[in-house]
Amino acid sequence: MAKKSKTAITPTREQDYPAWYQEVIKASDMAENSPVRGCMVIKPWGYAIWENIMHQMDAMFKQTGVKNAYFPLFIPLSYLEKEAEHVEGFAKECAVVTHHKLESDGEGGLKPAGKLTEPLIVRPTSETIIGESMARWTTSYRDLPILLNQWANVVRWEMRTRMFLRTSEFLWQEGHTAHATESEAKERTMLMLDIYTKFVEDYLAMPVIRGRKTVSERFPGADDTTCIEAMMQDKRALQAGTSHFLGQNFAKGSDIKFQNEEGTETFAWTTSWGVSTRMIGGMIMVHSDDDGLVLPPKIAPAHVVILPIFKKGEDRRTIMESAHGLKDALEEKQFHGRKIIVEIDDRDIGGTRGWDWVKKGIPVRIELGPRDIEQNSVFMARRDNPSNQKQSMDREEFIDQITDILDNIQDTLFNRAVTRRKENTFEIDDKKKFYKLYQKSKGFNNGAFIMSHWCGSEKCEEKIKKDLSVTIRCIPFDSPTEEGRCICCDNPSSRRVLFAKAY
Amino acid sequence: MAKKSKTAITPTREQDYPAWYQEVIKASDMAENSPVRGCMVIKPWGYAIWENIMHQMDAMFKQTGVKNAYFPLFIPLSYLEKEAEHVEGFAKECAVVTHHKLESDGEGGLKPAGKLTEPLIVRPTSETIIGESMARWTTSYRDLPILLNQWANVVRWEMRTRMFLRTSEFLWQEGHTAHATESEAKERTMLMLDIYTKFVEDYLAMPVIRGRKTVSERFPGADDTTCIEAMMQDKRALQAGTSHFLGQNFAKGSDIKFQNEEGTETFAWTTSWGVSTRMIGGMIMVHSDDDGLVLPPKIAPAHVVILPIFKKGEDRRTIMESAHGLKDALEEKQFHGRKIIVEIDDRDIGGTRGWDWVKKGIPVRIELGPRDIEQNSVFMARRDNPSNQKQSMDREEFIDQITDILDNIQDTLFNRAVTRRKENTFEIDDKKKFYKLYQKSKGFNNGAFIMSHWCGSEKCEEKIKKDLSVTIRCIPFDSPTEEGRCICCDNPSSRRVLFAKAY
Ligand SMILES: [Zn+2]
Ligand SMILES: [Zn+2]
Repeated sequence: MAKKSKTAITPTREQDYPAWYQEVIKASDMAENSPVRGCMVIKPWGYAIWENIMHQMDAMFKQTGVKNAYFPLFIPLSYLEKEAEHVEGFAKECAVVTHHKLESDGEGGLKPAGKLTEPLIVRPTSETIIGESMARWTTSYRDLPILLNQWANVVRWEMRTRMFLRTSEFLWQEGHTAHATESEAKERTMLMLDIYTKFVEDYLAMPVIRGRKTVSERFPGADDTTCIEAMMQDKRALQAGTSHFLGQNFAKGSDIKFQNEEGTETFAWTTSWGVSTRMIGGMIMVHSDDDGLVLPPKIAPAHVVILPIFKKGEDRRTIMESAHGLKDALEEKQFHGRKIIVEIDDRDIGGTRGWDWVKKGIPVRIELGPRDIEQNSVFMARRDNPSNQKQSMDREEFIDQITDILDNIQDTLFNRAVTRRKENTFEIDDKKKFYKLYQKSKGFNNGAFIMSHWCGSEKCEEKIKKDLSVTIRCIPFDSPTEEGRCICCDNPSSRRVLFAKAY
Repeated sequence: MAKKSKTAITPTREQDYPAWYQEVIKASDMAENSPVRGCMVIKPWGYAIWENIMHQMDAMFKQTGVKNAYFPLFIPLSYLEKEAEHVEGFAKECAVVTHHKLESDGEGGLKPAGKLTEPLIVRPTSETIIGESMARWTTSYRDLPILLNQWANVVRWEMRTRMFLRTSEFLWQEGHTAHATESEAKERTMLMLDIYTKFVEDYLAMPVIRGRKTVSERFPGADDTTCIEAMMQDKRALQAGTSHFLGQNFAKGSDIKFQNEEGTETFAWTTSWGVSTRMIGGMIMVHSDDDGLVLPPKIAPAHVVILPIFKKGEDRRTIMESAHGLKDALEEKQFHGRKIIVEIDDRDIGGTRGWDWVKKGIPVRIELGPRDIEQNSVFMARRDNPSNQKQSMDREEFIDQITDILDNIQDTLFNRAVTRRKENTFEIDDKKKFYKLYQKSKGFNNGAFIMSHWCGSEKCEEKIKKDLSVTIRCIPFDSPTEEGRCICCDNPSSRRVLFAKAY
C-alpha cells in the first residue's frame, strides 16, 4: 500500500460535506444512482449491510412475539380518499398506477393502455391496508394482541434525493400492533424504541438520544411519537427510528373493534414503528472519514481482507495457500452470532488494491508477504486507525485475538461518536448566543445539539424553525425537571429540550 | 379432539380440487385475497414458510459465490420499447405509473396529478435494469464473473388469479450472472438447477423431473431453458423453478462487453434463474389432504404444538408448567440448522382447537393432560398419519426422538409423492390411448405424466397442445436414447419426452 499524503476521498468532510458523502458511497461501491429518477441501485457491498441489519433486528422483533407478514404493493385510491377527507388542500407525492397494459403506439413506441377503473397507489406505507386487515381479524379480546411486521419497499415521490437518506423508493420495516388495553400498547411502544436503541447503539455504534416529539412534530394520528436521534459529524441530527403510540385513533379510523372480557365492544389500542435504509446513511455520516467508509464490525459485510504480497520470482502458490489457511482459521470463529467473514484479494493492481479496501471500510486489513510467512506473522491494519498505521503480529496471536480486535474497533467507533456528541452538545440559556451559534453554522460545522428551555408553545417552536431552520428534535426522556425560561419568549419552562438542525 | 367422520376440509380433493385448494389456504390461515384485485395478503403462517424458503435457498446461493443486490421497482418505458422493437403486435400486461401526485378533485375525492414525462413500469422482472447495470460494471475479464441475485416483489397483471399459483403481485428471487466463457455460463446454469432440485426435493419434499424445455417453451432469448417439474395430486405438472443459459443474446441486447485476457473486446455469456411464491402453491398441492395443510417439517413455521388438556377442578398451573418445561426441552434442539419451534395453545375452545392445528399442517401435535403428567408421558399425533391416530409415548423418549420423528415425517411425505408419481407415470406409444387418457381426464384425476416419443417438430407439439391442452413439460435429462415413433405424426424419434397438463 503506497504512502499517500492526500486523502482517499476528495473533497474532504471539511471542504464539502454533502459531496464527500456521495463520494464515500461511490468509492465504497455500496450503491449508485439508477436510470430511474430518485431511485438507487443498492450494490452487493451496500445490500449486505442492509441484510445484516434486517437479520439482527428481525431476530430482536421475533423474540418479543412479533410475526412477519406481507401486504400488497398497491393501495386503492379510495383508501387514501378516506384519509384525505379531513385534510384541506390534500396533496400527496406518490406513484399512481393508472393503466394495466402497454401497447404499440403505431410509431415504433409503446403507450399505456387498459385504463383502470380505480387508480392504484404504490404504497407509501401499508398502514391503511394493514388497518383494514386487522379490523377483519379482530373480533374478541382473544384475537389480541396482534403483533405484525413487514419488511418491504415503499415509494414516496421525492424531488431532491440523496442516496440512502432520501430516495423515492426505499426499503424499510413497518411494525403495527393492536392491543386490548392502553397500558399494553404503551409498553409495546417503549419496547420497540428500546429495541431500536439497542440495535443502533450496539450494532451501528451510533449513540442516540431518546425522547418524545413535540405535538407539532408528531406522526399524524399519534398520541405520542417517541424517537431516537443521532448526531452526524456535521453536527446535524438524524432521526434513526420512531415508535408511535396511536391511542385508539387509528383503530377508530380503521374500525378495529373487539369484544372485551366483559362482553363490551370497544376499540383496540395500536402502535406503529419503523426504520429504513436511511439508517445506513446515518451510519455512513457518523463513522466515515476522509479515506472513505468506516464500518462497525458487527454489521460489516466482511470483517477481514487478506492482501497477499507477491514479490518477483517468489512462489505465488505458497503465499495463496498460506492466505487460504489464514482465512479458514478465522472463519471457524463466530463474532456476535455471525461467522467471521474473510475476503482474499489477489488482484495484481498495485497500491490501489489496499486503498480499495480502506474506502470500502472493512474493519481489518492483513498484508501477507513472503517474509510474514517466514516469520509466521501478519501485517495488520485497523480501519479505526490512520490508514498508514500498521503493526506486525504473530499469526496465531492474531487468530486468537480477532474477535477481541473486532470488538475493540466496534467500541472505539461508538466511543468516538459519544465523545464527538459530548463536545458538540451545549446548554444555552441566552437567546442571542443561541441564534448566533446557528446563524454562523454551515457545511461541516452545522451547529450543535443545544439543550435549551422551551415554554411548550408551538409559536416559539415555529419561530425558531423559521428563523434558523432549527427544530426541537425531541424532549429527551432523561432531561430533568428544572426551573428555566423559554429560549424564545422568556416565559417560564420546566424542562430543557433538544434543538438541532436535522436531516 | 373430537372424533369426526367427515373431513376437516369441504369440499374434498375428489369433489372439487380447485375449491379444496382455496379452502386449505383459508383454513390454515396462510393467506387471503386482498382488497386489491389479484393481490394477496400473506399472513404470518404463510409468510413464515416463505421466510424459511428464502433463508435456506439464500444460504445455498451464497455458498456458490452469489451476492444479493437491490434494483429499482420501476423500469422506464423506453427500456421495454427496446425489447418490443422486434415484436409484432407487442402487448404486455403490467402496472403502468403515469402520475406522481394525488390532488383533490374538488368533489371530495382525489385525482392523479403531476403527469410523468415518461411512464414507469412496475418491474415484471428486473432483467433489463440489471443488464444495463452489468454493462456499466463490466470492462475487463477481471470484472467477471458477476453473480447477482435479488429477492423482491414483481407485478404482472393477471386477469384470473389463484393464491400463490398466479397473483398479480408475487414474491420471487431472480438470479443473473455474467461470465467470460460459454462453458462457465453453462456450468452455472446447471449448478443453479442443481440447487433448485436439492432444495425442492430435500426441503419441500417434492420429487422433481429435471430436463430442458423444447424450443417453443423456452424463455425468450434463452439458448437453453432447464427446469424442474413436479406432479401435483391431481396429476397435473407444476414447474417449480427454471434456470436459463442465455448464450450471448442477453449480453448483446444489453451491451455487456469486456476485454478478454488477449485484449479482444467480446460479449459476456449470461444466465438467469428464478423461483417464486408459486412454489408454496406447489407444496400445498403435493402434500395436503382432506383435513387441510400438510407441512414438510424442514420448512414448517413451527414443528410441534402442545395442547394442554384441562379437566374440571384440576390444576391449570401445574399443566401449563409442564407444557412450558416440555417446550423448553424441545427448543434446545436443532433440526436442520433451525431451532425446533414449539407452540403452546391453551385456548379453552373445545375440540376445534386440535382441528385448527391439523388444518395448519403442523408436523407434530402433543396432548398433555393430568394423566400424562402423572405417567410422565405425552399423547402424540403426527400430521402424516390419519388425524385420529395418536400414540402415548414416554416424555423423555419423545424429547430424545423428536428430530428423528420430524425426519421421518419429512421422508414419508417425499416417499409418498414419489410413489404417487410412479403410479401416475406411463410410457405410451399408441396415439389413441394417449388421446383417450387426456380426453377423459378432469378434476382430481387430471391425466398423468406420459413419457412418449416426439419427432421434434413444433407442429406436433402444437397439435397436442391444441387438441388436449397437454404440453411437453421437458425433455428429461435422464430419458435414454431409444428408437421410437412420434406419438403425434408417427415419424421416427430417438427419445421420449414428458407430456402433461400443467399449472
Ligand atoms: Zn416560548
Ligand atoms: Zn411428430
